[in-house]
Formats: sequence, C-alpha cells, structure tokens
Amino acid sequence: MRTVEWHEGRVKMIDQRQLPWELVHVEYERHEQVAQAIQDMVVRGAPAIGASAAFGMALAAYQNDTNDLRALQVYLQTAGETLKQSRPTAVNLMWAVDRILKLANSSDLITPDELRDALLQEAQHIADDDVVINRRMAANGATLINDGDTILHHCNTGMLATVDYGTALGVIRMAHEQGKNIHVLLDETRPRMQGARLSAWECQQLGISFDIIPDSAAGHYMKSGEVDIVLVGADRVAANGDTANKIGTYQLGVLAFVNDVPFYPTVPTSTIDMNLASGDDIPIEQRSADEVRKPHGKALIPDEYPARNPAFDVTPAEYITGIITENGIVKAPFVENIPKVMNASE
Amino acid sequence: MRTVEWHEGRVKMIDQRQLPWELVHVEYERHEQVAQAIQDMVVRGAPAIGASAAFGMALAAYQNDTNDLRALQVYLQTAGETLKQSRPTAVNLMWAVDRILKLANSSDLITPDELRDALLQEAQHIADDDVVINRRMAANGATLINDGDTILHHCNTGMLATVDYGTALGVIRMAHEQGKNIHVLLDETRPRMQGARLSAWECQQLGISFDIIPDSAAGHYMKSGEVDIVLVGADRVAANGDTANKIGTYQLGVLAFVNDVPFYPTVPTSTIDMNLASGDDIPIEQRSADEVRKPHGKALIPDEYPARNPAFDVTPAEYITGIITENGIVKAPFVENIPKVMNASE
Repeated sequence: MRTVEWHEGRVKMIDQRQLPWELVHVEYERHEQVAQAIQDMVVRGAPAIGASAAFGMALAAYQNDTNDLRALQVYLQTAGETLKQSRPTAVNLMWAVDRILKLANSSDLITPDELRDALLQEAQHIADDDVVINRRMAANGATLINDGDTILHHCNTGMLATVDYGTALGVIRMAHEQGKNIHVLLDETRPRMQGARLSAWECQQLGISFDIIPDSAAGHYMKSGEVDIVLVGADRVAANGDTANKIGTYQLGVLAFVNDVPFYPTVPTSTIDMNLASGDDIPIEQRSADEVRKPHGKALIPDEYPARNPAFDVTPAEYITGIITENGIVKAPFVENIPKVMNASE
Repeated sequence: MRTVEWHEGRVKMIDQRQLPWELVHVEYERHEQVAQAIQDMVVRGAPAIGASAAFGMALAAYQNDTNDLRALQVYLQTAGETLKQSRPTAVNLMWAVDRILKLANSSDLITPDELRDALLQEAQHIADDDVVINRRMAANGATLINDGDTILHHCNTGMLATVDYGTALGVIRMAHEQGKNIHVLLDETRPRMQGARLSAWECQQLGISFDIIPDSAAGHYMKSGEVDIVLVGADRVAANGDTANKIGTYQLGVLAFVNDVPFYPTVPTSTIDMNLASGDDIPIEQRSADEVRKPHGKALIPDEYPARNPAFDVTPAEYITGIITENGIVKAPFVENIPKVMNASE
C-alpha cells in the first residue's frame, strides 16, 4: 500500500481525511483535482505532496492531447503553477514540479507522446526514490534510538506523509523493527489532529506502543524526564538549519532545548531549500478557522467565534540538535554542514 | 449572575459543560452532589471550586437534622473529606473546607441550628469576598496592561472560574472597562477547550476583542512579537512561587521567558499554599482519556486509542515575571516577597 501512486492512467491516493475511521482511496483524472486534493489535505506531508504533484504533472501531460511539443510544454508550465499554488510552505511541492518541468523543457528531440511517457517515468522515479530515501533516513535516525526510549513525536510523518515508510515516524518504525522496546508520545496536533488520527492509526497498524497527548502536555512530559528524544518532520529547511514544520514544532524545539532533550527534524534532502538563507523567509500558510472550530466536521465551538489557524511555524536552528537526512545526520554549524549532505545526494 | 450561589436552601450553579451552546443552571440539595459536580467539572476554576465547596459544607449542615452539636460536627468532618477529595490540585478547595470546618469545630457555645446558620453565613462571606478580591486583583493587574496590548491567555479564568468577575480574565476585563484598546489571544486549552468555549463566551458577552488559537500556536505568536503579556490563573502556588495551573501553562511560561514576554499568574492569596515549599509537591490530577478522545461527546478519535490527560502542570518560579494578587503584585525573590502579601490579607 502506498499513500499515492499511479493507477491505470489516474493518480490514486488514500483520502487521509477519512482516517482513522475508514481507509478510503480516491482517484483523480485531472491535475486540477490533484491540486485541490493537496489544498484540501486529502494528501498531506511534504514528501507525499511532492510525489502527488509529480504524478499530477504526468496527469497534465496525458490530459492535453496536443501533437505540438511546444504547446504541451506551455500547458505543463501552467499546470505546474496550479500545482505549486496549492500549498505554499512545503518546498517538496516546488521541488517535484520543477524537476518534472526541467525534464519537460529540456526535451526538444522527442515527440509529445514520448515526453508524456518520460514524465510519468520521472514521477514514478520520484515516488520510488522517496521510499528508498525514507528507509535510508530511518536507518540513520534509528542509531539515535536506544532500547527503552520514549520518543515524543508531532503531527504525522509516517507512510501517510510520504509515499511509504515515513520520515520521523519511519525512524521510529525502523527502531521498532530492529526489536528495540520503545514507546511513543504522540502530540495530537490540533487543529487537524494528524497525530491523534494518522500517527496513532499507523502506530496501531505497526504494533508500536503509543499514547496520544494534548499538544499542551508535551512540555510537562519533557520536564518530568519521560522523554528521551523528540522527532519531527519538516516542510522546509533553510540553508542555516531553520526548520518550518507543523504549528507547534517551534514550541517543542524550545522546550526540548530547555529540558536538555535531543531534538531532531527528519527530512529528505529534497526538503532542504538551499535558496533560503534563513527561516525568516519561509511563507507560513494560514488555513481556515473552521479547522479550529469544527475539526473534521465536529463542531467544538460556535461558527461565529473568531479563530486563527497558522499551519506552520519556524524553529530556529539554535534549538535543533541535528537534522536526520538520507545522507547522514547533520549537526551544527548547519551552514557549513548542510551542503555536505546536499552534495552527497547528487 | 454568579457562577455559584445559595438559592432557597440549595446550591445553584451554571453548568459550564453546556457553554457556550446553552446557559443552563443546576441546583443541588446534597453536598455529595456538589462534590460530584466539582469532579465532573460542572463547576471549575480554583476560586469557584472553593466557593462551591463552602456552600456544599453549608448544605451538609442543613442535610443532617441532628440536635446533637457533636454529631453534627462529626458529620461535617466527613462531608469535608468528601468535598476535598473531589479534585486534588486546586488548593482553594481545601482552604474553603478547612475555613468552614474551623468555624464548625470552634462553636461549642451555640446550638446546631445556630451553627448551620453561621456556616451558611461564612460560605456566603467566602463567595462575596471572592468578588471583592477579584476586583482588587483586576485593578492591580490592569496597571500592567497598556493601550493597544495583545494579551495571551490560557484556559478560563473569568467569572466562570470564580464567583464573579475573574482572576486573569478579570484583569483583562478591568483593562477593557478602563477603555484600553486591547486584543486577547485565547489558547483553546485542550482537551476540555475552556479557552475556546468559556473564555470566548465571556469575551463575547463583554465585547472584548479576541481570537481563539490552538495551544500549539502560542509560541509562534510570542516569537512573532504579537504578544505583549501572558496572563494565566493558578490552582495552587507554592511558597517559592512555583505555580500549578492548567496543563500547558508551563510551556507558556518557558516560551514567554525565551521571548522576553512578561508572564503573570493572577491569583487570590487563598490560592497560595504556604505549606508547600516548592511546586514539586503539588499533586497533579490525571483525568479520563475520554476528555482527549471525545471532548464534550464529539468523538475525534476511536475509543480504543490510548491517551493521557494530565489536568495540570507546574511552572517553576524562574519563568514567572510576577504574581498578581489582591494585595499587590509580587516579584522575585518570591520566597521573601510572597509572605508580605499573605500578611496583608489577614
């Protein structure tokens, strides 16, 4: 089972809004539907969004049946813009679309049909790569997990946030598969409850011991000495190590630092944006207040109460112990050490 | 309107579980019902619990129609135990019951009927005092609020958490009534949503500008420079200033400290427990996981997912800028300065 895949000319994905209650798949025939699915968080998680967008570009190529290569290239450029605009924070989306567009625009010598097949192959390659990369990250990160550890985890970073296996939850899964006796405290991750709904569902499937906690209790458990390590994912890492991730991550970084608990974002190098000098420049998506007021349709408060819903925050590099990537664990000074893992992935 | 009051031989209170949807009052004839109401959080908030317990003791006195003063005193002792055991963390509960018991046990010279009336009078006195004390706290605290300030607030500390007016939210209300142009960021306060349900309801009633935010966003707004001051209540303050309050308060204290935002618990001196040297000794109530899984009956996740629900945490005094009391604002060194406001209230 993959979170997103190509299936008989369509993009097939798990509708994550239905979990943990039901495991439902949806299929899309048009790239505009994929963009909408990303916006509506049918699929979420930076790597999963990247792969979805890549398959969305392949869809776009097959959608347009022109025989004019240049016309197809122009159409793909527009499709890429549509997909990129679906969510602003995760850089994997831009990264995947740009990778497909680069291929599309460098192919003067082939026919439109050949281009279509080449783009699908490239999207498939991005998806397959993600699984391989996740397992490499997990193997690197699992070296940090000791038998008996309690791991604090935020949001969802498992197979659902990727094509398969996961980033931070992938590290946890690897440690579990290595036979280490571990326990996970899952931040519920308001407002959309990705921790309580998606990570809990994955842990249950995998037989990993867990407890869900309110986001407000994370500091209490760190202070009490129960937490050995904090693992999170990321939506974009700047060149200096500043890390944008699900709202609440910044708090965890500060609290881990104050309580001497190691704090590690786990990211594929495709999540590292070398074009951004610092996290100050990362755009923070503001989502609908309805997600706060009535998560998944359950009205917790009246519709007319004003609420704010920033989807992400930025954790300054000073609070980060290290960044787990597929090419190794990066430590400070990040400006100096991040390029080493970026080069390693070329 | 008062949160809790004596009404024709009964204890009448607002059922806070129904807000913000409906304003419903309930009445109790027996002290056991009052204890259950405290346990079930029909009434919550340290000062409101204290007044409720005092009225509960008066109920107990009238419940038992013995003509034997000693028998009545013994009965009251047992009733006091029942009420004290309803919730472990807030010290106002113990304080109010002990105050009533002290009067009950020192009254050798009066009849059982005179004792009953004396206890009701004392309970009424505790309730009336609470409102006076809240207004004095509010006046003290409002000196810290400037025109244009944005205040971050956790849980509910308004009229609903007290007999009337409020502690931290009382400060905000006073600043608003003084004509200061203020805005409040209300932490929603999972799992029971006291911020999003009760504080929002109160702010709306009072015309105070507010936005509800997920608990996980508080740090983000402090870091962004939007927050001028953090105001919280407290359930118990130790002699060294360590402060037990709603889960999540500790995180706010750390984040305020790291971001140079002033952080003030607002408490009546009855919430200060001079018998406790530090916060390490404050018992932390663990509540049902169902409050996390299905707040107010709205199932967010499956019943079988394990969850933990600590109701309180302890913020070490080092993160506290000052403590607002009815007798003035206490600053560090707390061990030295807290006794000054305690004496002032005698």
